[in-house]
Amino acid sequence: MIEKPLLEVCLSPALLHLYDLENTIVVVIDIFRATSTICAALDNGAKAVIPIASVEACMEFSQMGDGYITAGERDGKVIEGLQNGNSPSEYGRDFIKGKTLVLTTTNGTKLLHMVKKAETIIIGSFLNLDAVCSFLIGKNKKVLLACSAWKDRVNMEDTLFAGAVVQQVNTHFKIECDSAKIALSLFEESKQHEHLIDALVHSSHYRRLSEFGLQKDMEYCTTKNLHPVVPVFNGKELIHEHSI
Amino acid sequence: MIEKPLLEVCLSPALLHLYDLENTIVVVIDIFRATSTICAALDNGAKAVIPIASVEACMEFSQMGDGYITAGERDGKVIEGLQNGNSPSEYGRDFIKGKTLVLTTTNGTKLLHMVKKAETIIIGSFLNLDAVCSFLIGKNKKVLLACSAWKDRVNMEDTLFAGAVVQQVNTHFKIECDSAKIALSLFEESKQHEHLIDALVHSSHYRRLSEFGLQKDMEYCTTKNLHPVVPVFNGKELIHEHSI
Repeated sequence: MIEKPLLEVCLSPALLHLYDLENTIVVVIDIFRATSTICAALDNGAKAVIPIASVEACMEFSQMGDGYITAGERDGKVIEGLQNGNSPSEYGRDFIKGKTLVLTTTNGTKLLHMVKKAETIIIGSFLNLDAVCSFLIGKNKKVLLACSAWKDRVNMEDTLFAGAVVQQVNTHFKIECDSAKIALSLFEESKQHEHLIDALVHSSHYRRLSEFGLQKDMEYCTTKNLHPVVPVFNGKELIHEHSI
Repeated sequence: MIEKPLLEVCLSPALLHLYDLENTIVVVIDIFRATSTICAALDNGAKAVIPIASVEACMEFSQMGDGYITAGERDGKVIEGLQNGNSPSEYGRDFIKGKTLVLTTTNGTKLLHMVKKAETIIIGSFLNLDAVCSFLIGKNKKVLLACSAWKDRVNMEDTLFAGAVVQQVNTHFKIECDSAKIALSLFEESKQHEHLIDALVHSSHYRRLSEFGLQKDMEYCTTKNLHPVVPVFNGKELIHEHSI
């Protein structure tokens, strides 16, 4: 019998050193809202998304013509010097088609650069849940689901998404990692709610973003399969799987 | 209205730097098996338990006469040069009464030394669950439930215990921490099993210790309130709360 590949879950970037990234597909998860926004932008026709760790480096793209949209928020407001925010709803087809989104965020873009050693890096969010699961099952390789967390603190929404993936790909992988089982149990518990977002209303991130009036945004980010793309990181840009 | 004190959960020693230990009661958790063994030994009349990070330092106590019992295991076997193992069932009243247990373990004793800045450090396990909860409610201070994990990897049994505490003390504390909510959800999910241990049979630690034939030991460690003591760390030894 051929052994199934391993699937593990890393709940915070501060635990990343415990996992071996070699020959591994890493799924970067930042539900509120980097990875949700990336999926929306690419599915709506963006040419690419460039994830940038620092605001300054992001600003440099502002001078590169209207093929680039620079985006980033702090405390719910567009950062001075950038053009747009972090909300997936800002990136409708009319606006983003054919353009390159240059995005800086607090947690997700940082993690993307931390996992560079991985064989393949893709982006996961509820918006592309099924697409991610099909991709992983199809590749049949070792997987790490990597949560961006909030400033290294384990968070509920990223863990919940990891649990959703574990539940769907369960029979195709060898899952021995306790973090994966904890994430799965969180997802199972969430089923008592009619809408996923109801499982998150007591989370710290929901409370924080609600103060900025972003409830609708978070509802959007917890809607399954609205944007069935698989964004792949080529070391510089995130592009549509089929463009590789 | 007087604000309730904060309660947070730290899922791994590698995340400890994210939490402020000042003016905080830290509950050190290492269900399999350091903190379970400490509770059993103290409840059965041990004078004190000295937690020691290194095997060498533990051995030095072997020469200090029969008032001291040195204990430690690696891979399910008593470490050469030490007298006893890590199992709570080894520390019956006849054996341990009046003696000092000098204990070295892989995860729990390390964490105990890492949280020294805390105002108060106590030991938590299912064996003293209610006693710990009453202690925390009585003190009405800021709390951190600190999981020992397994070589920094988040584990199920410590998280499950944190969830059990959160459930019992919920109304007395302000709980905004996502790790606490994840732990609580894990505990809620475990209720579908008749015995707590059944919620853990797929955990990595259960698998590991089962290979050494330690199933009975783990059942013991998941039995609630067998040893209703509150072990307190005075910086050197763990002693019974009422001896302070």
